[in-house]
Amino acid sequence: MKITMLAYPGLTPLDLMGPLQVWSLWPDAEIQVVWKTTDPIMTDTGMAIVPTHSFEDSFDKPDILFAPGGTKATFELMADVTTMAFLKAKGANAQWITSVCTGALLLGSAGLLAGYKATTHWAAHANLEAFGAIATQGRYVIDRNRATGGGVTAGIDFGLALLAAIAGDELAKTVQLSLEYSPQPPFNSGTPEEASEETIQQVLARFATAIS
Amino acid sequence: MKITMLAYPGLTPLDLMGPLQVWSLWPDAEIQVVWKTTDPIMTDTGMAIVPTHSFEDSFDKPDILFAPGGTKATFELMADVTTMAFLKAKGANAQWITSVCTGALLLGSAGLLAGYKATTHWAAHANLEAFGAIATQGRYVIDRNRATGGGVTAGIDFGLALLAAIAGDELAKTVQLSLEYSPQPPFNSGTPEEASEETIQQVLARFATAIS
Repeated sequence: MKITMLAYPGLTPLDLMGPLQVWSLWPDAEIQVVWKTTDPIMTDTGMAIVPTHSFEDSFDKPDILFAPGGTKATFELMADVTTMAFLKAKGANAQWITSVCTGALLLGSAGLLAGYKATTHWAAHANLEAFGAIATQGRYVIDRNRATGGGVTAGIDFGLALLAAIAGDELAKTVQLSLEYSPQPPFNSGTPEEASEETIQQVLARFATAIS
Repeated sequence: MKITMLAYPGLTPLDLMGPLQVWSLWPDAEIQVVWKTTDPIMTDTGMAIVPTHSFEDSFDKPDILFAPGGTKATFELMADVTTMAFLKAKGANAQWITSVCTGALLLGSAGLLAGYKATTHWAAHANLEAFGAIATQGRYVIDRNRATGGGVTAGIDFGLALLAAIAGDELAKTVQLSLEYSPQPPFNSGTPEEASEETIQQVLARFATAIS
């Protein structure tokens, strides 16, 4: 199982780390984290990560292509010719085309979501339609060979669900127990449906600043 | 709020990334990810991360000291004189002494959990007693100024809970909504209480191999 996970300067690293940690326990997986070069890239947390491979040295035909999200950096990357060409080329050969959070906007911009149901971070949901995607509510959405996760932390649920779809429930359950994934969020504030209006407005204001 | 987060070769990066992503949205937080040097360090996922500061250049008196877990690397680090001296020195001045997963064993080995209730990854729970800690079930356990999270993914719950305890519920709710933290695990297999006996045995076998 050849897995190509995009990384880029400014990404939200938890988008990447959720499925990466899940899939690192998949015995059949060979995982590459790729960017234009293998120099360290800064994330939106202030800590850098190091891609394992450059675009050039990455798998010709990945079984899974994955794109993580972010804020301003992600919106800018949608206009980056090299990255869009890379996603388009790898997407043409991939068995699965996947994302977490606003990574879906990168797939969409590369023409990979037209006619497919997809999800993204709740605050960016409206952006999906511009790419001909069918914006769909869901912690993760699987439509044929497109699998997209919601915002940031959805990457863990998405990663386990895709693992189960490909390798079976038993392995996914073992990985879930290995990572002690029995979440207990301290508040009911993880979606706009649950959160207070004041909390929603604060997040939207932060998001508007972060993408401008 | 000065935060010192330990990193080390072989760590489980999701242990670190959960609270790091949560706390990166804390306006008052200054976060350092520290190791002996600032050279890239390999994680147990095959992707390297880059510490922001060396031990030498890290905060004298962090408000929060944090240790993430891992498997073999973590058990070996318990015997590393430099790291234990570092944790002991910073712990003596920190307002909060904290961990996720087997990071608790590092705190314990540095003498920082004696007489405190603490938790760790379910498969390592019995190891806590050797350090005089009071092994306690919980997604996260807060006892006076010690805050310890369970295995790997517990770091998100732990990070939000500690943020709420220090900075108040409103900010924590805003961060939870920003990260769309409304988990929907695909299976009920996140704890030994929920998982099947076969799944438990597989994880224990993997854990035994991973620490040997």
